[in-house]
Amino acid sequence: MEFRIEKDTMGDVKVPADKLWGAQTERSKNNFKIGPAASMPLEIVHGFAYLKKAAAYTNCELGVLSSEKRDLIATVCDEILEGKHDDQFPLVIWQTGSGTQSNMNVNEVIANRAHQLAGHVVGEGEKTIQPNDDVNKSQSSNDTFPTGMHIAAYKKVVENTIPGVIKLRNTINEKAIAFKEVVKIGRTHLMDATPLTLGQEFSGYVAQLDYGLKALENTLPHLSEIALGGTAVGTGLNTPKGYDVLVAKYISEFTGKPFITAPNKFEALAAHDAIVETHGALKQLAVSLNKIANDIRMMASGPRSGIGEINIPANEPGSSIMPGKVNPTQCEALTMVCAQVMGNDVAVTVGGMQGHYELNVFKPMMAANLLQSAQLIGDACSSFNAHCASGIEPNYDVIKQLLNNSLMLVTALNTKIGYYKAAEIANTAHKNGTTLKTEAVNLGYVTAEEYDEWVKPEEMVGSLK
Amino acid sequence: MEFRIEKDTMGDVKVPADKLWGAQTERSKNNFKIGPAASMPLEIVHGFAYLKKAAAYTNCELGVLSSEKRDLIATVCDEILEGKHDDQFPLVIWQTGSGTQSNMNVNEVIANRAHQLAGHVVGEGEKTIQPNDDVNKSQSSNDTFPTGMHIAAYKKVVENTIPGVIKLRNTINEKAIAFKEVVKIGRTHLMDATPLTLGQEFSGYVAQLDYGLKALENTLPHLSEIALGGTAVGTGLNTPKGYDVLVAKYISEFTGKPFITAPNKFEALAAHDAIVETHGALKQLAVSLNKIANDIRMMASGPRSGIGEINIPANEPGSSIMPGKVNPTQCEALTMVCAQVMGNDVAVTVGGMQGHYELNVFKPMMAANLLQSAQLIGDACSSFNAHCASGIEPNYDVIKQLLNNSLMLVTALNTKIGYYKAAEIANTAHKNGTTLKTEAVNLGYVTAEEYDEWVKPEEMVGSLK
Amino acid sequence: MEFRIEKDTMGDVKVPADKLWGAQTERSKNNFKIGPAASMPLEIVHGFAYLKKAAAYTNCELGVLSSEKRDLIATVCDEILEGKHDDQFPLVIWQTGSGTQSNMNVNEVIANRAHQLAGHVVGEGEKTIQPNDDVNKSQSSNDTFPTGMHIAAYKKVVENTIPGVIKLRNTINEKAIAFKEVVKIGRTHLMDATPLTLGQEFSGYVAQLDYGLKALENTLPHLSEIALGGTAVGTGLNTPKGYDVLVAKYISEFTGKPFITAPNKFEALAAHDAIVETHGALKQLAVSLNKIANDIRMMASGPRSGIGEINIPANEPGSSIMPGKVNPTQCEALTMVCAQVMGNDVAVTVGGMQGHYELNVFKPMMAANLLQSAQLIGDACSSFNAHCASGIEPNYDVIKQLLNNSLMLVTALNTKIGYYKAAEIANTAHKNGTTLKTEAVNLGYVTAEEYDEWVKPEEMVGSLK
Amino acid sequence: MEFRIEKDTMGDVKVPADKLWGAQTERSKNNFKIGPAASMPLEIVHGFAYLKKAAAYTNCELGVLSSEKRDLIATVCDEILEGKHDDQFPLVIWQTGSGTQSNMNVNEVIANRAHQLAGHVVGEGEKTIQPNDDVNKSQSSNDTFPTGMHIAAYKKVVENTIPGVIKLRNTINEKAIAFKEVVKIGRTHLMDATPLTLGQEFSGYVAQLDYGLKALENTLPHLSEIALGGTAVGTGLNTPKGYDVLVAKYISEFTGKPFITAPNKFEALAAHDAIVETHGALKQLAVSLNKIANDIRMMASGPRSGIGEINIPANEPGSSIMPGKVNPTQCEALTMVCAQVMGNDVAVTVGGMQGHYELNVFKPMMAANLLQSAQLIGDACSSFNAHCASGIEPNYDVIKQLLNNSLMLVTALNTKIGYYKAAEIANTAHKNGTTLKTEAVNLGYVTAEEYDEWVKPEEMVGSLK
Repeated sequence: MEFRIEKDTMGDVKVPADKLWGAQTERSKNNFKIGPAASMPLEIVHGFAYLKKAAAYTNCELGVLSSEKRDLIATVCDEILEGKHDDQFPLVIWQTGSGTQSNMNVNEVIANRAHQLAGHVVGEGEKTIQPNDDVNKSQSSNDTFPTGMHIAAYKKVVENTIPGVIKLRNTINEKAIAFKEVVKIGRTHLMDATPLTLGQEFSGYVAQLDYGLKALENTLPHLSEIALGGTAVGTGLNTPKGYDVLVAKYISEFTGKPFITAPNKFEALAAHDAIVETHGALKQLAVSLNKIANDIRMMASGPRSGIGEINIPANEPGSSIMPGKVNPTQCEALTMVCAQVMGNDVAVTVGGMQGHYELNVFKPMMAANLLQSAQLIGDACSSFNAHCASGIEPNYDVIKQLLNNSLMLVTALNTKIGYYKAAEIANTAHKNGTTLKTEAVNLGYVTAEEYDEWVKPEEMVGSLK
Repeated sequence: MEFRIEKDTMGDVKVPADKLWGAQTERSKNNFKIGPAASMPLEIVHGFAYLKKAAAYTNCELGVLSSEKRDLIATVCDEILEGKHDDQFPLVIWQTGSGTQSNMNVNEVIANRAHQLAGHVVGEGEKTIQPNDDVNKSQSSNDTFPTGMHIAAYKKVVENTIPGVIKLRNTINEKAIAFKEVVKIGRTHLMDATPLTLGQEFSGYVAQLDYGLKALENTLPHLSEIALGGTAVGTGLNTPKGYDVLVAKYISEFTGKPFITAPNKFEALAAHDAIVETHGALKQLAVSLNKIANDIRMMASGPRSGIGEINIPANEPGSSIMPGKVNPTQCEALTMVCAQVMGNDVAVTVGGMQGHYELNVFKPMMAANLLQSAQLIGDACSSFNAHCASGIEPNYDVIKQLLNNSLMLVTALNTKIGYYKAAEIANTAHKNGTTLKTEAVNLGYVTAEEYDEWVKPEEMVGSLK
Repeated sequence: MEFRIEKDTMGDVKVPADKLWGAQTERSKNNFKIGPAASMPLEIVHGFAYLKKAAAYTNCELGVLSSEKRDLIATVCDEILEGKHDDQFPLVIWQTGSGTQSNMNVNEVIANRAHQLAGHVVGEGEKTIQPNDDVNKSQSSNDTFPTGMHIAAYKKVVENTIPGVIKLRNTINEKAIAFKEVVKIGRTHLMDATPLTLGQEFSGYVAQLDYGLKALENTLPHLSEIALGGTAVGTGLNTPKGYDVLVAKYISEFTGKPFITAPNKFEALAAHDAIVETHGALKQLAVSLNKIANDIRMMASGPRSGIGEINIPANEPGSSIMPGKVNPTQCEALTMVCAQVMGNDVAVTVGGMQGHYELNVFKPMMAANLLQSAQLIGDACSSFNAHCASGIEPNYDVIKQLLNNSLMLVTALNTKIGYYKAAEIANTAHKNGTTLKTEAVNLGYVTAEEYDEWVKPEEMVGSLK
Repeated sequence: MEFRIEKDTMGDVKVPADKLWGAQTERSKNNFKIGPAASMPLEIVHGFAYLKKAAAYTNCELGVLSSEKRDLIATVCDEILEGKHDDQFPLVIWQTGSGTQSNMNVNEVIANRAHQLAGHVVGEGEKTIQPNDDVNKSQSSNDTFPTGMHIAAYKKVVENTIPGVIKLRNTINEKAIAFKEVVKIGRTHLMDATPLTLGQEFSGYVAQLDYGLKALENTLPHLSEIALGGTAVGTGLNTPKGYDVLVAKYISEFTGKPFITAPNKFEALAAHDAIVETHGALKQLAVSLNKIANDIRMMASGPRSGIGEINIPANEPGSSIMPGKVNPTQCEALTMVCAQVMGNDVAVTVGGMQGHYELNVFKPMMAANLLQSAQLIGDACSSFNAHCASGIEPNYDVIKQLLNNSLMLVTALNTKIGYYKAAEIANTAHKNGTTLKTEAVNLGYVTAEEYDEWVKPEEMVGSLK
């Protein structure tokens, strides 16, 4: 491999000749060989691209950067956002806890690529743009990294998580409406209980997801606040007047998302409660989704020896010889995602609680967990929606059989023949393994016609459907 | 011990003669010897008292309960709320997951006490009021327990947690204002950084608590929704028309809190995402409080060999021979509480994710964890406020010494003598263990007067204070 | 209330006249009003009683305490262990993180009670025994509290947790043996699969508990190491030569448990990885128990519209009108305990990771969580064993019906008529809702006799039963 | 892109022509677009390669597979283990919870590659080797996936985690020995306490890591048990006699690790407590490492306004202008890893607790978390060792100054002049901000010579060093 020499304040470093990064990136690559390479999420790099461009525009507008440099920086940022330099960011999550080296990675790549765009060869001549003095102007790792992670997280939540959850919510809602007359046995403690409709059951899932979406949306205002302008410790040292508000305006414009400057920069650097808050809402969604997916796989279980009240799509061979063995694989993927999100929530909590003085140094880990959780929930909901929920159909025969077979319907006779006779009917049917109707008639308490007239499960499901 | 015989559908049970509870309570006592007795939080019992009274009023108003019975039930509920029967609730958290037996415990105590109030002897004659038919009328364990836990949780959060956090928040805010001119060294990565004021540092804590309070308040609407009216599976079977809305109105009136009927009763029985949601906000507060308490104990460390920038009150003997050994015991109590809340959050998550079909059967565990966390955070904030935060004072001498001793102030010379000379000064001072001023003058780059004129930490802290 | 005056180095404190505690206990009571009073587990107080007695014996044997004082101290310790002074320990978990004040509570109670035993009135005259100089001789809070918590934790695990788990393990093993011929349908992905015996299924639970017990026992050596002799920072300052080994010997003798002195006292004060380790094993047991309890409640579900393969004891009225509605309440209590233990594990982890320099100050919280988890698992296993596991019986009819109804048995025909014909039989039966035998004969691939000869589920369950 | 047609029991699927995988892999790729592609850890694929080869050998030896097929299979497995086909495994963690599709991915790749090796073109002619009938012979996804994950996990733990931790442990132990005479101030509650040596402090870290390693090793026997031979539900249906023991012998031989067949296959499929157990030990190590890394960064804090008792290597520019600002970046990377491992532990717990009947369907998620945690701890320890621990040096001047400046040394005078005079000295020094010696002499209690003779910190550190 060929190398060129890059320098930083500690001296010379050999960097692969075909890479745009510089000395500090290379040092980090060598000093943090922890886990797979390049684990720092690209979403954060792209978040940096937005903010570096916004900083260049702001610095220029406030008179501390030339428009030539601004345009060079902005052009490279646009290239990064187009995905042209994805292989230029080799660093890992497990680096400096402020993400300093990923900030420098971005600064170095922008500076070297700008040098190319200005018609020069990387590594030759004075850099057209300086990574620290120009690209990082009016910035510090301490305020850029949290800004990059808020941009990445906010975008991921609104562009991936929420749409995925909404798709699933809407499909389940359609099912709730479609199944609103499908009366079935209810189950509490996993045991037979009074009836409800399948639509009512599904309406509970819709309500869960609506609450989860509301909870997630409640966290967005905090997440929309960005630290940029705080620089090293939150005081905004070395920023021009008005910088923080203006740079947020540019970020908002470039991303199309309503970012604002954090009213308290000390909090914005030293604590990442916004990440904790948003992840908490993702965890709540994981709790809801786990319940829903569990119910669906239990109701779809069988085909002969389970519950079998609904059918779900067969997407892949379950068993080569076993017809009807439709494994609830989408439920399994989704519940594995839920478990991961619950775990990630603890990782985020442990990171969030450990800020020290003016800086929390668990930034990359917290951001990576939030991004993973947000991505997984969005994707898993989309997948579950497309490959499972949208294809759910009632197994009418089984639903009817389990309902009519149930002893719980006897409660409908209470008001006709009294509690004690009703209980006697149920007890006898339970003992003999027969139906309520059989024993009701046998015991002489009702006629067959009366039974059919009085025991109507569809009248036991309330007006809530 | 003397006993009387109580009955339920399974037969006779011997109950201590001096207790008001009945057969089902006694069975539960014997069947669930798990952990300390009577661990079911009294707050939930009191929540039940509100709802039983409200149900009695609603049932009466809707024509299914006599006003005599209503008044007897209401009188006992008021007695329970006055704390007169606290020893009549011996059951544990670790019982039926629907809390059925605590519902029956309340029903039985109300019925027996009503019998007394009606002039009879418990255990003699037909019960004046039936536990099931009267006290539990239009109800099920499945909708009463979640109602009781929402009442208990909501009250605990607004009456204990929020006031406790606000007290602490206000004290820290007063300190932030009082210390707004106290310039001190900043620290990032635990290392010396550019200065800020102690007030700015404290303002970050205020911001954290404000976000936490906002997050907690965001969860209250969901928590204010009550399941009552859903009965066994959410359909509202066996409730009179209009019952759910009216009973919520009465609960709201009796508690003085804005409870409303849950729009979807299936969700309200089968999932407890409201508990998950509120506990998530408590966990976020724990994350914030942990950061704050950690900073304070680090800043107060010493007296000689630590940081020592602030003094905290000495509330108890730290060491009998060691003057100034003021252990940060309130920080320790608070951070232990934070750890507990973080753990409780996982318990709540694990319970919340496991609803099955029409019922979540982790109710008592989830409720107990939420109540504990809400209580501990409120109490610990109050304690920390009274015994630590309110007494925090800057240690001006130390703050000044650490600030002036710092090499970081050299950045103020950058614009005067250039980056390289400034760095040379800092390097020399670092190597020699001397001050910046000494070396700046020795190297001949500035005069002593210029140094004092140019290096003013108070001008490095921005306008954000 | 009447008071007397007690003193410590900070001055006078009013203490209720009828209480044996002193100034520092009273201060703590006032300074830490966090959660319910007296939450510090009595098991830890009793652990202290063992160690104070052992310290007195050791100090006497090593010549630094008179035998009169030793005997007075020992007598009070014995009284404490007999439970005579349980109401003298009013402090909470949420105090100083070293547990200093509970150490002083014990010292003060011992000193005052000794004064009584010596014929004096508490609060009058010079104390016969000094709390610090005599009771606490050769000790520090920093080494006594971890010793007390190891004693309490070790005893709880071996006297409560392990016996409870073993009882349950043995019952399930008896069931595994009793049910070893009961062939039933297997289920993977909750879907019908090839058969196994109910005994085989239960043998898996036995294996889980055996692994869990082994894992728990693996942690006991670390837990048996005690910090006593390390005093303030681990160096053993102010202890007579040989003290640490001898005091461990006495503790071992008094408790009847194999405690030894920790080989590294610095670790023993500054970290509580032994607590983390033991709790980790409890968490593993919780994982296993959750699986077992879930399986049992699913297999017992019904009575008509669930799985219904086993019957569990009816311990309390499930539904007054619904015969056979036997709610799996012991499963619910047990799984709630499991959720709590999983949460506690995170609390212990968060506490354990935060030691600072020479001391971990999350001691009371960590100890309380371990004790709760150990108690709950032991108790819940005992309860589950007595009220559920021991009464489990197969529902032979249902098991047989679900087995014979299954399409999965077709795999037995593969080797007789080939894969494709076998699959055709299964497909036809699935489509028509008929049995394999019907379609096998209808399609002309086998005779009824051949079918019965070849399709023998009991020959598909291997030799592993 | 060019495609070929592959078939499975559900029909035709278009597969990229240049890929070796088949129909089921392609289906899974399309049905589970959740998170980044190819997230299924390659270590598991390699685990499969070992077991597929071992199964081929066993099947051949037991007479159910030809030696030609055995050799073809074995050759492809060896190629996979050499990393030649890493791009042929495109599936994600978030698939079927049994990992069925990754099993099929391996089966398909082996079959197609074997077809090539036999001189044919993939997609043309009858497959030389059948993915199901040959490669998967005597196997099921249900027993292969847990086998693959145990192989991967065991290897990762013994080849990466343990060596990494041992390296760090040995370095810290060398430091403990090297620093055994370096007397320094002790700190409890973060406050000044009696002295110890830096070597003693480090010896505590060594003890922590030794306990952690022991705990981790305690889990290896369970992890060495493999499920293979259980097939679909644990009964071993369709395996030749002796298969399970023999296949374990081959796996043991091929991997060089002591794998044995699981004594209870039902547990081995339905529960993954071995994964829970091993991860619990990794979590314990995370707890220990977090404590160690925290101590080191606090002791290294400064350079002027922190503790500054040790120096750590400067690996990258901390601040361009701030000499001595050596950020503890390795501590930050390590503690972020610890937080992740603590979170992963909850994910593993939540997955482990949810097995249903004969199968746990959280396999890929559990395995991925264990592998990540094991990798991260091993790597982070190696990195921390190389770039931080090995370069730690005492800052003797600071250590001496903080020690001698401390008021805690006054305890050495207790036995000479009595407790009260000693306390008076300390109080006066604290009040005046002077040294003990100054005030001791000023007060006339000791001469300067006596002071130096009597106050010797090095005699206060015990014989434990």
